[in-house]
Amino acid sequence: MKIALAQLNYHIGNFESNTKKITEAIHHAKRQGADLVVFAELSICGYPPRDFLEFNEFVELCDDAAKKIAAECTDIACIIGLPTKNPKIEGKDLYNSAYFIENGEVKASVNKALLPNYDVFDEYRYFEPGNGFNCIEYKGVKIALTICEDLWNINDNPLYVFNPMDVLIQQKPELMINIAASPFDYKHDEDRMKVLSDNSKKYGLPLLYVNQVGSQTEIIFDGGSLAFNAAGELLDELPYFKEALRVYEFKDGKLIGSPIQSATLSDIEAIHQALVLGIKDYFQKSGFTQAVLGLSGGIDSALVCALASEALGPENVTGILMPSKFSSDHSIQDALDLVKNLGCKHEIVPIKEATKVFDRLLKPVFKELPFNVAEENIQARCRAIIVMAFSNKFGYILLNTSNKSECAVGYGTLYGDMAGAISVLGDVYKTQVYELCHHINRNGEIIPKNTMIKPPSAELRPGQKDADSLPDYDTLDSILFQYIERKKSSKAIIAQGFDEALVKQVIALVNRAEFKRYQTPPILRVSPKAFGMGRRMPIVGKYLS
Amino acid sequence: MKIALAQLNYHIGNFESNTKKITEAIHHAKRQGADLVVFAELSICGYPPRDFLEFNEFVELCDDAAKKIAAECTDIACIIGLPTKNPKIEGKDLYNSAYFIENGEVKASVNKALLPNYDVFDEYRYFEPGNGFNCIEYKGVKIALTICEDLWNINDNPLYVFNPMDVLIQQKPELMINIAASPFDYKHDEDRMKVLSDNSKKYGLPLLYVNQVGSQTEIIFDGGSLAFNAAGELLDELPYFKEALRVYEFKDGKLIGSPIQSATLSDIEAIHQALVLGIKDYFQKSGFTQAVLGLSGGIDSALVCALASEALGPENVTGILMPSKFSSDHSIQDALDLVKNLGCKHEIVPIKEATKVFDRLLKPVFKELPFNVAEENIQARCRAIIVMAFSNKFGYILLNTSNKSECAVGYGTLYGDMAGAISVLGDVYKTQVYELCHHINRNGEIIPKNTMIKPPSAELRPGQKDADSLPDYDTLDSILFQYIERKKSSKAIIAQGFDEALVKQVIALVNRAEFKRYQTPPILRVSPKAFGMGRRMPIVGKYLS
Repeated sequence: MKIALAQLNYHIGNFESNTKKITEAIHHAKRQGADLVVFAELSICGYPPRDFLEFNEFVELCDDAAKKIAAECTDIACIIGLPTKNPKIEGKDLYNSAYFIENGEVKASVNKALLPNYDVFDEYRYFEPGNGFNCIEYKGVKIALTICEDLWNINDNPLYVFNPMDVLIQQKPELMINIAASPFDYKHDEDRMKVLSDNSKKYGLPLLYVNQVGSQTEIIFDGGSLAFNAAGELLDELPYFKEALRVYEFKDGKLIGSPIQSATLSDIEAIHQALVLGIKDYFQKSGFTQAVLGLSGGIDSALVCALASEALGPENVTGILMPSKFSSDHSIQDALDLVKNLGCKHEIVPIKEATKVFDRLLKPVFKELPFNVAEENIQARCRAIIVMAFSNKFGYILLNTSNKSECAVGYGTLYGDMAGAISVLGDVYKTQVYELCHHINRNGEIIPKNTMIKPPSAELRPGQKDADSLPDYDTLDSILFQYIERKKSSKAIIAQGFDEALVKQVIALVNRAEFKRYQTPPILRVSPKAFGMGRRMPIVGKYLS
Repeated sequence: MKIALAQLNYHIGNFESNTKKITEAIHHAKRQGADLVVFAELSICGYPPRDFLEFNEFVELCDDAAKKIAAECTDIACIIGLPTKNPKIEGKDLYNSAYFIENGEVKASVNKALLPNYDVFDEYRYFEPGNGFNCIEYKGVKIALTICEDLWNINDNPLYVFNPMDVLIQQKPELMINIAASPFDYKHDEDRMKVLSDNSKKYGLPLLYVNQVGSQTEIIFDGGSLAFNAAGELLDELPYFKEALRVYEFKDGKLIGSPIQSATLSDIEAIHQALVLGIKDYFQKSGFTQAVLGLSGGIDSALVCALASEALGPENVTGILMPSKFSSDHSIQDALDLVKNLGCKHEIVPIKEATKVFDRLLKPVFKELPFNVAEENIQARCRAIIVMAFSNKFGYILLNTSNKSECAVGYGTLYGDMAGAISVLGDVYKTQVYELCHHINRNGEIIPKNTMIKPPSAELRPGQKDADSLPDYDTLDSILFQYIERKKSSKAIIAQGFDEALVKQVIALVNRAEFKRYQTPPILRVSPKAFGMGRRMPIVGKYLS
């Protein structure tokens, strides 16, 4: 039996385009002689559909699409993912299901039993856990079909109280198929490889795994669908961050093929590709082509400009230089060098006059009070007015350029540099920003050298440097990682050897910035713990440490 | 046996103040001769603690607090709520538990079995469902103790597959106690009354129910703890939106008392009190005293100013009048009348010069392009710069004044009038804004009459009226209610008799504004479906209708 894995880029709620992609892949697989073609979890509607699932109309449109797809399934079978209605009165109204379709008809339906409800996942918000388990028989082969998380309960601290495969294995299947929507983070590909290989070994079965690819607002799917033999050895790996369809032969209880080494990307390469795909799909799926961003001459905006130019084409990216009275000459030159290297567009709009007007307007109230964060923020907000005016006038999408270290400690101005439709670097620590720039410059200078070597500065007052108010980024990022990713207490972080006062200061800054982060744009997620839907902290609360 | 219900206002993560409140209530109840005092769900840490629960330190601090409280529990027993560790390796690491404490020791622990995971609730994100059920025996009385949602599975379309009380009833308890953290919405008090009464009737048992009171960022608890007899008749009702402690006598299998009528507030009265409490607790719990807001002379900012003056005292509220070249004279006069009626502070900062500067700065790029939404937004954003400058300079908290109708259709400027630390009216439709104003003026004019009778206008271009671009608010709000609260499709709404083109236009506006709403401040929740954590829509997605 020949089985095709179809790794596709879906668009949430776009039944027309998803159905078209799926049916084209069915025909493509048929032409390649496949007996069965396998699509990802919730492939019909895209993942995560969120509260679309609470609209009856949405679920009915999924069902309609499934019927259209089934009609194309002649001389080939397919497995697709979709939400289905729970026929029982008790329990939630929906299941997260996989249909097995053959000869134009749904021959079997499998319901996901283990529903991820952590980090960015909210599946128990919508779905009733499946609780009946049956293998599917097709062309004489007994297949154990499961959905994503159903295979993930095999670590030392299992999140669920049972494994669906423990039930299915009793029916003596010959092959496991798992359909997934498993988002990228720089650590996840490794975890995924191990979990799936462990399943093959534990149950002594070959395994075909198909993932989604493409970005859905902030959640990026990296593809990388996989095939394992019964010994848990990797036989094949579909490309990362790209659509693909590949056919495998299953014969005499075995997947044909020899073990290979995974072509796993380095963390920085993977983050790079993820961010480019994240930008590209944000624009494509929301129907925009042009990006705008503020260019300060600093490294964050330079990196975002480079990534956007790669994703959208430099002709679709406009950088706005907005020098204030505190901007150094080199800032402007560095930004101009970048624009030249990339070939993107730029405009120069100095903001000195604008900040002066606000100083004058507020003078009767502020009187002789000293210059402080209020005036610093006015500068950042004047810049936001200008870039947003470009956005509103020309239909450009504003890219936010704040990095994760800044987001974490609140080193940014709400309604100022924290503005934007999508945050490109909000899940990338400053130390990783440097690594990404070096990676981008690997074949020659794109990010100007001076941008990379000068000390980071917001240039909001004379001679200001980040280092005046923040520890060096190596130390800062290490502390932030322990608190945000590892959820350690200040006590535990201090015990690792960090300075006590510094740890307490950093954690206090992170906590105080919750109200700001609540109002930031969605952040492209590349780490196991990004700000946004994956990290839900009270705003008014008494914080620890 | 005498049982006290303690309805208290907790502060999330503030173990010191919560523990102090709880121990004071224990002593208070003891002085009143109570044998048992009952506190709300998760009373030790406040509700909802959200991802604080993922910090080991947080859970340990809950445990420490429980020990301190237990030490105070001599000659009286108490029931308190807290997260506890799941001793089993399988399943999630925590339970949502109730401790029964007697003689300084935890005598029994009950784990919540039905975990709400819809709307604003995310309990399955953290907790393993409880699955062992045992009554508690105290002073010869067998008590069926359950936690909030555990009693809510008795409607026609039950969300869960079983009822904990169906198990507990087999042990022949004489009394039900339910501890809750059940947030306010204008419909919820009625539902709650019915569900609890239905439980009393179904199981033929008296029921004591204790709720939290107070606001936690956007979620407002209204208190209103209740006592029912075995026939499901209401015996007593604690005050709404206030702390309270009251003692009941349970004797010979009965709660002593005669049936009463619920003193339920009207929807508008309840919303009024909820919003005042919401503002008050936001400031108190985050340690601020002074509010600032823009006053346009319109009804939304007038209402927010009145509510804030009631919550914080008019001496702690500063209204900023920021006329532009499009502001009418009456706008300024209406705002000044309001300030006079309320006795709050005000400043006048005209923005004409500021918008002029931006016109000039952008002229080289915008050239002769006609005035449009870009320039309208510049005005709104200049105002945001000014109110935020007050916030930054003086430590005032900016109150957002957008209403739910505007939020819904995106009739507002991101980083402009959509700015603020907390949105007071973001869950109040424009038609309800008028009702609230009439309610506030019930004993005399507070909101100026002219503010209430003039046609709504954003005054962003000459002679602009809301009615130029939006349908009348009665119709708009009716359509929005069907789409947002009822989740109806356009087809279903049109079938109700609304104009087809209008329905499609409104729904398209709502969908297109998702990206804006993602970046709005937390919204005080007073309806069953508020924007924010309770409504999670994809941003990049193809919307229906």
